[in-house]
Amino acid sequence: MKELHNRILKDGHALSETVLKVDSFLNHQVDPNLMYEMGTYFKNYFKEHEITKIFTIESSGIAPAVMTAMQMNLPMVTLKKQSSKILNGDVYQTTVHSFTKAMDYELTLSKKYITAEDRILIIDDFLANGEAALGAARLVEEAGAQVAGIGIVIEKSFQPGRKVLEDKGYEVYSLARIAKLGEGLIEFVE
Amino acid sequence: MKELHNRILKDGHALSETVLKVDSFLNHQVDPNLMYEMGTYFKNYFKEHEITKIFTIESSGIAPAVMTAMQMNLPMVTLKKQSSKILNGDVYQTTVHSFTKAMDYELTLSKKYITAEDRILIIDDFLANGEAALGAARLVEEAGAQVAGIGIVIEKSFQPGRKVLEDKGYEVYSLARIAKLGEGLIEFVE
Repeated sequence: MKELHNRILKDGHALSETVLKVDSFLNHQVDPNLMYEMGTYFKNYFKEHEITKIFTIESSGIAPAVMTAMQMNLPMVTLKKQSSKILNGDVYQTTVHSFTKAMDYELTLSKKYITAEDRILIIDDFLANGEAALGAARLVEEAGAQVAGIGIVIEKSFQPGRKVLEDKGYEVYSLARIAKLGEGLIEFVE
Repeated sequence: MKELHNRILKDGHALSETVLKVDSFLNHQVDPNLMYEMGTYFKNYFKEHEITKIFTIESSGIAPAVMTAMQMNLPMVTLKKQSSKILNGDVYQTTVHSFTKAMDYELTLSKKYITAEDRILIIDDFLANGEAALGAARLVEEAGAQVAGIGIVIEKSFQPGRKVLEDKGYEVYSLARIAKLGEGLIEFVE
Protein backbone atom coordinates (compact mmCIF):
# COMPACT_ATOMS: atom_id res chain seq x y z
CA MET A 1 0.00 0.00 0.00
CA LYS A 2 1.90 2.95 -1.36
CA GLU A 3 0.26 5.60 0.89
CA LEU A 4 1.24 3.56 3.96
CA HIS A 5 4.82 3.04 2.77
CA ASN A 6 5.16 6.78 2.25
CA ARG A 7 3.69 7.54 5.64
CA ILE A 8 5.98 5.07 7.41
CA LEU A 9 9.01 6.63 5.69
CA LYS A 10 7.82 10.14 6.55
CA ASP A 11 6.52 9.70 10.11
CA GLY A 12 7.71 6.32 11.37
CA HIS A 13 10.73 6.09 13.66
CA ALA A 14 13.01 3.08 13.57
CA LEU A 15 14.44 3.03 17.09
CA SER A 16 16.47 -0.16 16.76
CA GLU A 17 16.73 -3.29 14.59
CA THR A 18 13.36 -4.47 15.90
CA VAL A 19 11.36 -1.42 17.07
CA LEU A 20 9.37 0.76 14.67
CA LYS A 21 7.33 3.54 16.30
CA VAL A 22 4.27 4.65 14.33
CA ASP A 23 2.64 6.50 17.21
CA SER A 24 1.88 9.57 15.11
CA PHE A 25 -0.64 7.90 12.79
CA LEU A 26 -1.50 4.38 14.02
CA ASN A 27 -0.82 3.48 17.66
CA HIS A 28 -1.52 6.62 19.66
CA GLN A 29 -2.47 9.43 17.32
CA VAL A 30 -4.57 7.96 14.50
CA ASP A 31 -5.09 9.30 10.97
CA PRO A 32 -8.71 8.33 10.23
CA ASN A 33 -8.44 8.88 6.48
CA LEU A 34 -5.45 6.57 6.28
CA MET A 35 -7.41 4.00 8.34
CA TYR A 36 -10.25 4.26 5.80
CA GLU A 37 -7.83 3.67 2.93
CA MET A 38 -6.44 0.61 4.74
CA GLY A 39 -10.01 -0.65 4.95
CA THR A 40 -10.36 -0.25 1.19
CA TYR A 41 -7.21 -2.31 0.61
CA PHE A 42 -8.34 -5.07 2.97
CA LYS A 43 -11.79 -5.11 1.38
CA ASN A 44 -10.39 -5.37 -2.12
CA TYR A 45 -8.03 -8.19 -1.17
CA PHE A 46 -10.52 -10.26 0.83
CA LYS A 47 -13.76 -9.51 -1.03
CA GLU A 48 -13.99 -13.00 -2.59
CA HIS A 49 -13.14 -14.82 0.67
CA GLU A 50 -16.76 -15.04 1.87
CA ILE A 51 -15.93 -13.33 5.15
CA THR A 52 -18.82 -13.19 7.64
CA LYS A 53 -17.17 -11.24 10.48
CA ILE A 54 -14.05 -9.25 11.26
CA PHE A 55 -12.11 -9.84 14.46
CA THR A 56 -9.45 -7.58 15.90
CA ILE A 57 -7.45 -7.39 19.10
CA GLU A 58 -7.76 -4.38 21.37
CA SER A 59 -6.76 -1.73 20.96
CA SER A 60 -4.60 -0.53 18.02
CA GLY A 61 -6.30 -2.87 15.57
CA ILE A 62 -9.74 -1.37 16.18
CA ALA A 63 -9.44 1.68 13.91
CA PRO A 64 -8.35 -0.14 10.73
CA ALA A 65 -10.69 -3.06 11.52
CA VAL A 66 -13.81 -0.93 11.95
CA MET A 67 -13.05 0.91 8.70
CA THR A 68 -12.70 -2.45 6.93
CA ALA A 69 -15.88 -3.78 8.53
CA MET A 70 -17.83 -0.73 7.39
CA GLN A 71 -16.67 -1.06 3.79
CA MET A 72 -17.38 -4.80 3.78
CA ASN A 73 -20.71 -4.22 5.57
CA LEU A 74 -19.84 -6.78 8.26
CA PRO A 75 -19.87 -6.77 12.06
CA MET A 76 -16.56 -6.40 13.88
CA VAL A 77 -15.65 -8.06 17.15
CA THR A 78 -12.92 -6.72 19.43
CA LEU A 79 -11.15 -9.55 21.23
CA LYS A 80 -10.49 -8.36 24.77
CA LYS A 81 -7.23 -8.64 26.66
CA GLN A 82 -8.09 -9.76 30.18
CA SER A 83 -5.49 -10.02 32.91
CA SER A 84 -7.04 -13.17 34.36
CA LYS A 85 -9.21 -16.16 33.43
CA ILE A 86 -12.98 -15.68 33.47
CA LEU A 87 -14.41 -18.72 35.22
CA ASN A 88 -17.74 -19.15 33.51
CA GLY A 89 -18.79 -20.95 30.38
CA ASP A 90 -19.78 -17.87 28.41
CA VAL A 91 -16.41 -17.11 26.82
CA TYR A 92 -13.60 -18.65 24.84
CA GLN A 93 -10.18 -17.73 26.25
CA THR A 94 -6.59 -18.42 25.31
CA THR A 95 -3.32 -17.26 26.83
CA VAL A 96 -1.18 -15.04 24.59
CA HIS A 97 2.37 -13.98 25.32
CA SER A 98 3.30 -10.43 24.37
CA PHE A 99 7.01 -10.18 23.59
CA THR A 100 6.71 -6.37 23.33
CA LYS A 101 5.33 -6.05 26.85
CA ALA A 102 7.00 -9.20 28.24
CA MET A 103 3.74 -10.40 29.76
CA ASP A 104 0.84 -12.81 29.22
CA TYR A 105 -2.80 -11.92 28.79
CA GLU A 106 -6.03 -13.84 28.30
CA LEU A 107 -7.51 -13.13 24.87
CA THR A 108 -11.27 -13.32 25.35
CA LEU A 109 -14.28 -13.80 23.06
CA SER A 110 -17.90 -14.09 24.11
CA LYS A 111 -19.45 -17.27 22.71
CA LYS A 112 -22.45 -15.20 21.61
CA TYR A 113 -20.52 -13.54 18.80
CA ILE A 114 -19.28 -16.53 16.81
CA THR A 115 -20.88 -19.63 15.32
CA ALA A 116 -19.42 -22.67 13.59
CA GLU A 117 -20.61 -21.20 10.25
CA ASP A 118 -18.50 -18.06 10.57
CA ARG A 119 -15.57 -17.27 8.26
CA ILE A 120 -13.42 -14.80 10.15
CA LEU A 121 -11.02 -12.17 8.88
CA ILE A 122 -8.54 -11.29 11.65
CA ILE A 123 -7.11 -7.76 11.40
CA ASP A 124 -4.26 -6.46 13.56
CA ASP A 125 -1.85 -3.53 13.50
CA PHE A 126 1.48 -5.39 13.72
CA LEU A 127 2.76 -8.85 12.89
CA ALA A 128 6.05 -9.79 14.53
CA ASN A 129 6.13 -13.22 16.19
CA GLY A 130 2.51 -13.96 15.36
CA GLU A 131 1.47 -14.66 18.95
CA ALA A 132 -1.60 -12.39 18.94
CA ALA A 133 -2.90 -13.56 15.55
CA LEU A 134 -2.34 -17.20 16.52
CA GLY A 135 -4.27 -16.60 19.73
CA ALA A 136 -7.16 -15.07 17.80
CA ALA A 137 -7.10 -18.03 15.38
CA ARG A 138 -7.23 -20.49 18.31
CA LEU A 139 -10.41 -18.79 19.58
CA VAL A 140 -11.99 -18.94 16.11
CA GLU A 141 -11.19 -22.63 15.75
CA GLU A 142 -12.27 -23.47 19.29
CA ALA A 143 -15.71 -22.21 18.19
CA GLY A 144 -15.59 -24.52 15.16
CA ALA A 145 -15.41 -21.53 12.81
CA GLN A 146 -12.85 -20.87 10.08
CA VAL A 147 -10.03 -18.33 9.77
CA ALA A 148 -10.64 -17.05 6.24
CA GLY A 149 -7.67 -14.67 6.28
CA ILE A 150 -5.36 -12.50 8.34
CA GLY A 151 -4.92 -8.83 7.45
CA ILE A 152 -1.96 -6.98 8.93
CA VAL A 153 -1.15 -3.28 8.73
CA ILE A 154 2.62 -3.55 9.29
CA GLU A 155 4.50 -6.82 9.04
CA LYS A 156 8.04 -7.14 10.38
CA SER A 157 9.08 -9.60 7.74
CA PHE A 158 12.43 -10.23 9.46
CA GLN A 159 10.56 -11.81 12.37
CA PRO A 160 8.92 -15.26 12.20
CA GLY A 161 5.21 -14.27 12.38
CA ARG A 162 4.31 -14.73 8.71
CA LYS A 163 6.00 -18.12 8.48
CA VAL A 164 4.36 -19.30 11.70
CA LEU A 165 0.90 -18.33 10.39
CA GLU A 166 1.46 -19.69 6.88
CA ASP A 167 2.72 -23.00 8.30
CA LYS A 168 -0.66 -23.30 10.02
CA GLY A 169 -2.35 -22.80 6.65
CA TYR A 170 -3.51 -19.21 7.12
CA GLU A 171 -3.44 -16.66 4.32
CA VAL A 172 -1.66 -13.48 5.41
CA TYR A 173 -2.02 -10.14 3.62
CA SER A 174 0.05 -7.22 4.93
CA LEU A 175 -0.27 -3.62 3.79
CA ALA A 176 3.41 -2.92 4.51
CA ARG A 177 6.21 -5.48 4.83
CA ILE A 178 9.36 -4.30 6.55
CA ALA A 179 12.49 -6.15 5.42
CA LYS A 180 14.97 -4.38 7.66
CA LEU A 181 15.05 -1.86 10.49
CA GLY A 182 17.95 -0.02 12.06
CA GLU A 183 18.47 3.30 13.75
CA GLY A 184 17.02 5.69 11.18
CA LEU A 185 16.73 2.89 8.59
CA ILE A 186 13.49 1.44 7.20
CA GLU A 187 13.55 -0.95 4.21
CA PHE A 188 10.51 -2.60 2.69
CA VAL A 189 10.27 -6.06 1.15
CA GLU A 190 10.45 -5.68 -2.65
CA MET B 1 -30.22 9.77 18.26
CA LYS B 2 -33.23 7.75 17.24
CA GLU B 3 -31.32 4.86 15.59
CA LEU B 4 -29.31 4.42 18.80
CA HIS B 5 -32.38 4.51 21.06
CA ASN B 6 -34.00 1.84 18.91
CA ARG B 7 -30.86 -0.29 18.96
CA ILE B 8 -30.54 -0.03 22.74
CA LEU B 9 -34.18 -1.08 23.15
CA LYS B 10 -33.75 -3.95 20.71
CA ASP B 11 -30.30 -5.30 21.65
CA GLY B 12 -29.33 -3.73 24.98
CA HIS B 13 -29.72 -5.69 28.21
CA ALA B 14 -30.50 -3.95 31.47
CA LEU B 15 -29.01 -6.30 34.03
CA SER B 16 -29.75 -4.19 37.12
CA GLU B 17 -30.56 -0.62 38.12
CA THR B 18 -27.06 0.47 37.06
CA VAL B 19 -25.77 -2.02 34.47
CA LEU B 20 -26.66 -1.79 30.77
CA LYS B 21 -24.93 -4.31 28.50
CA VAL B 22 -24.51 -3.22 24.88
CA ASP B 23 -21.94 -5.86 24.00
CA SER B 24 -23.70 -6.81 20.78
CA PHE B 25 -23.15 -3.51 18.95
CA LEU B 26 -20.76 -1.25 20.93
CA ASN B 27 -18.48 -2.82 23.53
CA HIS B 28 -17.48 -6.22 22.16
CA GLN B 29 -19.22 -6.78 18.84
CA VAL B 30 -19.34 -3.46 16.99
CA ASP B 31 -21.78 -2.33 14.29
CA PRO B 32 -19.59 -0.17 12.02
CA ASN B 33 -22.50 1.48 10.22
CA LEU B 34 -24.02 2.57 13.52
CA MET B 35 -20.58 3.92 14.55
CA TYR B 36 -20.49 5.93 11.33
CA GLU B 37 -23.94 7.39 12.05
CA MET B 38 -22.80 8.32 15.56
CA GLY B 39 -19.91 10.16 13.93
CA THR B 40 -22.36 12.09 11.78
CA TYR B 41 -24.32 13.18 14.88
CA PHE B 42 -21.18 14.26 16.73
CA LYS B 43 -19.94 16.14 13.67
CA ASN B 44 -23.23 17.97 13.22
CA TYR B 45 -23.39 18.95 16.88
CA PHE B 46 -19.77 20.08 17.25
CA LYS B 47 -19.09 21.46 13.76
CA GLU B 48 -19.04 25.11 14.92
CA HIS B 49 -16.87 24.40 17.98
CA GLU B 50 -13.56 24.90 16.15
CA ILE B 51 -12.32 21.46 17.21
CA THR B 52 -8.70 20.70 16.25
CA LYS B 53 -8.38 17.12 17.53
CA ILE B 54 -10.49 14.28 18.88
CA PHE B 55 -9.43 12.38 21.99
CA THR B 56 -10.83 9.08 23.15
CA ILE B 57 -10.04 6.56 25.85
CA GLU B 58 -9.11 3.01 24.94
CA SER B 59 -10.79 0.91 23.93
CA SER B 60 -14.59 1.09 23.41
CA GLY B 61 -14.48 4.79 22.49
CA ILE B 62 -12.16 4.19 19.54
CA ALA B 63 -14.74 3.05 16.98
CA PRO B 64 -17.17 6.00 17.35
CA ALA B 65 -14.26 8.44 17.77
CA VAL B 66 -12.44 7.38 14.60
CA MET B 67 -15.69 7.63 12.61
CA THR B 68 -16.23 11.14 13.98
CA ALA B 69 -12.63 12.11 13.28
CA MET B 70 -12.92 10.94 9.68
CA GLN B 71 -16.09 12.94 9.06
CA MET B 72 -14.60 16.04 10.72
CA ASN B 73 -11.29 15.47 8.89
CA LEU B 74 -9.32 15.66 12.15
CA PRO B 75 -6.69 13.49 13.83
CA MET B 76 -7.77 11.26 16.71
CA VAL B 77 -5.68 10.42 19.75
CA THR B 78 -6.32 7.33 21.86
CA LEU B 79 -5.51 8.01 25.51
CA LYS B 80 -3.85 4.88 26.86
CA LYS B 81 -4.67 3.13 30.09
CA GLN B 82 -1.37 2.21 31.72
CA SER B 83 -1.17 0.14 34.86
CA SER B 84 1.74 2.16 36.27
CA LYS B 85 3.38 5.59 36.06
CA ILE B 86 5.81 6.21 33.22
CA LEU B 87 8.80 7.95 34.75
CA ASN B 88 9.99 10.19 31.95
CA GLY B 89 9.02 13.67 30.88
CA ASP B 90 7.51 12.67 27.53
CA VAL B 91 3.95 12.09 28.72
CA TYR B 92 1.10 13.63 30.65
CA GLN B 93 -0.48 11.21 33.10
CA THR B 94 -3.35 11.29 35.55
CA THR B 95 -4.83 8.62 37.80
CA VAL B 96 -8.42 7.61 37.01
CA HIS B 97 -10.59 5.40 39.16
CA SER B 98 -12.85 2.96 37.33
CA PHE B 99 -15.95 2.22 39.40
CA THR B 100 -16.96 -0.49 36.90
CA LYS B 101 -13.71 -2.39 37.33
CA ALA B 102 -13.01 -1.20 40.90
CA MET B 103 -9.43 -0.27 40.02
CA ASP B 104 -7.21 2.69 39.17
CA TYR B 105 -5.29 3.24 35.96
CA GLU B 106 -2.92 5.89 34.63
CA LEU B 107 -4.49 7.70 31.68
CA THR B 108 -1.57 8.59 29.42
CA LEU B 109 -0.99 11.10 26.62
CA SER B 110 2.25 11.71 24.75
CA LYS B 111 3.21 15.40 24.90
CA LYS B 112 3.90 15.23 21.15
CA TYR B 113 0.21 15.03 20.28
CA ILE B 114 -1.17 18.15 21.95
CA THR B 115 -0.27 21.85 21.97
CA ALA B 116 -1.62 24.80 23.94
CA GLU B 117 -3.50 25.89 20.80
CA ASP B 118 -5.57 22.70 20.59
CA ARG B 119 -9.34 22.63 21.11
CA ILE B 120 -10.16 19.04 22.00
CA LEU B 121 -13.37 17.08 21.58
CA ILE B 122 -13.38 14.13 24.02
CA ILE B 123 -15.47 11.15 22.87
CA ASP B 124 -16.26 8.15 25.05
CA ASP B 125 -18.72 5.26 25.00
CA PHE B 126 -20.32 5.65 28.45
CA LEU B 127 -20.81 8.47 30.95
CA ALA B 128 -21.64 7.35 34.49
CA ASN B 129 -19.61 9.01 37.25
CA GLY B 130 -17.55 11.07 34.82
CA GLU B 131 -14.18 9.82 36.08
CA ALA B 132 -12.75 8.91 32.67
CA ALA B 133 -13.89 12.12 30.94
CA LEU B 134 -12.60 14.22 33.85
CA GLY B 135 -9.25 12.46 33.62
CA ALA B 136 -9.06 13.15 29.88
CA ALA B 137 -9.95 16.80 30.55
CA ARG B 138 -7.18 17.06 33.16
CA LEU B 139 -4.62 15.89 30.58
CA VAL B 140 -5.90 18.43 28.03
CA GLU B 141 -5.68 21.27 30.53
CA GLU B 142 -2.30 20.19 31.85
CA ALA B 143 -1.08 20.80 28.29
CA GLY B 144 -2.62 24.28 28.34
CA ALA B 145 -5.17 23.27 25.70
CA GLN B 146 -8.96 23.62 25.86
CA VAL B 147 -11.73 21.07 26.20
CA ALA B 148 -14.11 22.25 23.46
CA GLY B 149 -16.73 19.61 24.17
CA ILE B 150 -17.46 16.11 25.43
CA GLY B 151 -19.37 13.67 23.23
CA ILE B 152 -20.84 10.57 24.86
CA VAL B 153 -22.53 7.61 23.21
CA ILE B 154 -24.63 6.47 26.20
CA GLU B 155 -25.17 8.63 29.26
CA LYS B 156 -26.56 7.15 32.45
CA SER B 157 -28.40 10.28 33.44
CA PHE B 158 -29.30 8.88 36.87
CA GLN B 159 -25.61 8.93 37.77
CA PRO B 160 -23.68 12.13 38.55
CA GLY B 161 -21.33 12.28 35.52
CA ARG B 162 -23.11 14.97 33.51
CA LYS B 163 -23.49 17.27 36.52
CA VAL B 164 -19.85 16.79 37.51
CA LEU B 165 -18.69 17.72 33.99
CA GLU B 166 -21.11 20.64 33.58
CA ASP B 167 -20.08 22.04 36.97
CA LYS B 168 -16.54 22.22 35.59
CA GLY B 169 -17.85 24.22 32.64
CA TYR B 170 -17.71 21.48 29.99
CA GLU B 171 -20.39 21.10 27.34
CA VAL B 172 -21.70 17.54 27.22
CA TYR B 173 -23.60 16.08 24.26
CA SER B 174 -24.88 12.51 24.60
CA LEU B 175 -26.43 10.46 21.81
CA ALA B 176 -28.61 8.52 24.24
CA ARG B 177 -29.57 9.53 27.78
CA ILE B 178 -30.85 6.77 30.05
CA ALA B 179 -33.24 8.00 32.77
CA LYS B 180 -33.85 4.68 34.45
CA LEU B 181 -32.65 1.09 34.33
CA GLY B 182 -34.02 -2.03 35.97
CA GLU B 183 -34.14 -5.72 35.16
CA GLY B 184 -35.57 -5.68 31.66
CA LEU B 185 -36.38 -1.94 31.91
CA ILE B 186 -34.76 0.85 29.88
CA GLU B 187 -36.20 4.38 29.97
CA PHE B 188 -34.74 7.37 28.14
CA VAL B 189 -34.70 11.01 29.27
CA GLU B 190 -37.56 12.84 27.49
